[in-house]
Amino acid sequence: MRAPLLIFWLSLGLSHTFETSADTAADPAARNNLVNNPVAIVIHGGAGTIRREKLNPETEAAYRSSLTAAVTAGHEVLEAGGSSREAVIAAILVMEDSELFNAGHGAVLNHEGDAELDASIMVGGDLSAGAVAGVRHIRNPILLADRVMTHSRHVMLIGSGAEEFAMEQGFEKVSNDYFKTERRLEQLQRLQQRDQVSLSEADDKFGTVGAVALDQQGVIAAGTSTGGMTNKRYGRVGDSPIIAAGTYADNNCGVSATGHGEYFIRAAVAHDICARVRYQGVSLAEAGEAVINGKLVEMGADGGVVGLDAAGNIVMPFNTTGMYRASIDRAGILMTGVFAEEGE
Amino acid sequence: MRAPLLIFWLSLGLSHTFETSADTAADPAARNNLVNNPVAIVIHGGAGTIRREKLNPETEAAYRSSLTAAVTAGHEVLEAGGSSREAVIAAILVMEDSELFNAGHGAVLNHEGDAELDASIMVGGDLSAGAVAGVRHIRNPILLADRVMTHSRHVMLIGSGAEEFAMEQGFEKVSNDYFKTERRLEQLQRLQQRDQVSLSEADDKFGTVGAVALDQQGVIAAGTSTGGMTNKRYGRVGDSPIIAAGTYADNNCGVSATGHGEYFIRAAVAHDICARVRYQGVSLAEAGEAVINGKLVEMGADGGVVGLDAAGNIVMPFNTTGMYRASIDRAGILMTGVFAEEGE
Repeated sequence: MRAPLLIFWLSLGLSHTFETSADTAADPAARNNLVNNPVAIVIHGGAGTIRREKLNPETEAAYRSSLTAAVTAGHEVLEAGGSSREAVIAAILVMEDSELFNAGHGAVLNHEGDAELDASIMVGGDLSAGAVAGVRHIRNPILLADRVMTHSRHVMLIGSGAEEFAMEQGFEKVSNDYFKTERRLEQLQRLQQRDQVSLSEADDKFGTVGAVALDQQGVIAAGTSTGGMTNKRYGRVGDSPIIAAGTYADNNCGVSATGHGEYFIRAAVAHDICARVRYQGVSLAEAGEAVINGKLVEMGADGGVVGLDAAGNIVMPFNTTGMYRASIDRAGILMTGVFAEEGE
Repeated sequence: MRAPLLIFWLSLGLSHTFETSADTAADPAARNNLVNNPVAIVIHGGAGTIRREKLNPETEAAYRSSLTAAVTAGHEVLEAGGSSREAVIAAILVMEDSELFNAGHGAVLNHEGDAELDASIMVGGDLSAGAVAGVRHIRNPILLADRVMTHSRHVMLIGSGAEEFAMEQGFEKVSNDYFKTERRLEQLQRLQQRDQVSLSEADDKFGTVGAVALDQQGVIAAGTSTGGMTNKRYGRVGDSPIIAAGTYADNNCGVSATGHGEYFIRAAVAHDICARVRYQGVSLAEAGEAVINGKLVEMGADGGVVGLDAAGNIVMPFNTTGMYRASIDRAGILMTGVFAEEGE
């Protein structure tokens, strides 16, 4: 049963390893019983001012290609019977390793010129969760957030304490230079000349990445990873590592957010969307619209979310001109999106 | 109009100062129009295994006396026309400065023998919020959380970054020794001999402090401050500085939590209670019961919350044998409580 997954890993040439969880139906019989349950996955690579006239065709194609690789990586895990947790991690790893996105390699730089990374993951089945904030030497923060969830008594570890835990757990320590790219150094210099803080590219994009998946066992997981805001104050934490703000998953609903983190924390975006589904009895689409295009717009907050519900219904609401996004729905249909005017 | 407040501060001999906010009705006319609106405040000083036979009468009296001082400090602010934000801070300062509680002076010590402090505050009117985590040299973390809210572009600052911001803002840097007490050093040694992590006193008490207040303008604010768990891993963050988990306030509902923080994050306790009130239309009492004695008990999580709604109704549900708590309700009636069997 592991063969397809193994081949998938090898074919991507990934060196990442993470332990599979006990809940991913190691029992083939149990898995086969459920093999017809629908699986689905949705990802984002950041929202913001993304305009067709400013994005050249080559760059757009590169984003769509990376998004396709990420969402496919996650979907193959699900199809092979893997857990939503593993699928979320597989998708996010592709985006953390791509320099296109503000997470892992290619993350934006803080005021001091360093990358400072946050990530979180949550599994709906038992509401287990893990998060790290302010790490500087861990190649894939989503793997460390996952390890906090599976191998510590804690949910959230920050800064040097998080890195000390990583070392104990056998993570490799990478230089902060690993994360830095020419493009991000130029962005920082440009913003520092104007003395601005931005979650943005030149085009004001929020580059956080995230994924939400539903597996054959009906478990929803969500995860988010980011470098935060360009030129941010050292020690600033946005919504990405905050359970209920940037990431939330329960049995009925999972959400990963991207946007102006301060507002997303105050609005408890991810949990609020799932709470509306649960307590108001509205659809995930209605709940997502109400929060992203209602509450957040009233607050003056830019951004969006991706989410899915227990039936595998996928939503990707955002209130900016674009959001890098992709999904493979329960019928197996792949879509990628960049601009607002593309239908979902 | 400021005279009563000033006299109050002077009479307590407090050296704390914090700026009053523009929203606290600097306009006496506006304030007078609303002067008959009910005010209310509720505080906690930690929940856990607190048994009558284990708490000697002198210690119990000391707790009740400190709780009374704290809740009265907050209430006097409200009666003088101050904001709920100022009232919450005034109450929490008394508990941070008391060595009885696990916050500020007298906070528990982490695995390395240091105090490492977290705090957060949220104002319901505009959903503004501030939080700090992992600070070691700031006498009153609640004041720093408040300053992050009022004087930074950010909501959450952690570790050295938070302290750097504090220095820029003119906060005094205190030695970590300021927080340490004989009792906490002994607790740490005892737990380290047993290799345990505890949010506890010898008696398994969660000593976080918090307050929720409703002011004459109808604005609800909530705040929480803690030293976290004795013998905790360096860098561990519990629910106290997490908006939606340990602290939440909107126009209808405010909550401050105390308990096993990892579970409180996963359950998004403070926001979940307020979401039930808003979306299910149940009373705050029902919502609090459902989360504290329903959901959290199912998860195996110990703790409690204090909260109040827009009408000034006060709740203090907990699922442990005791919770240090006090309130002054809209009729002006003071109560203090320690054990479960005391009526509210």
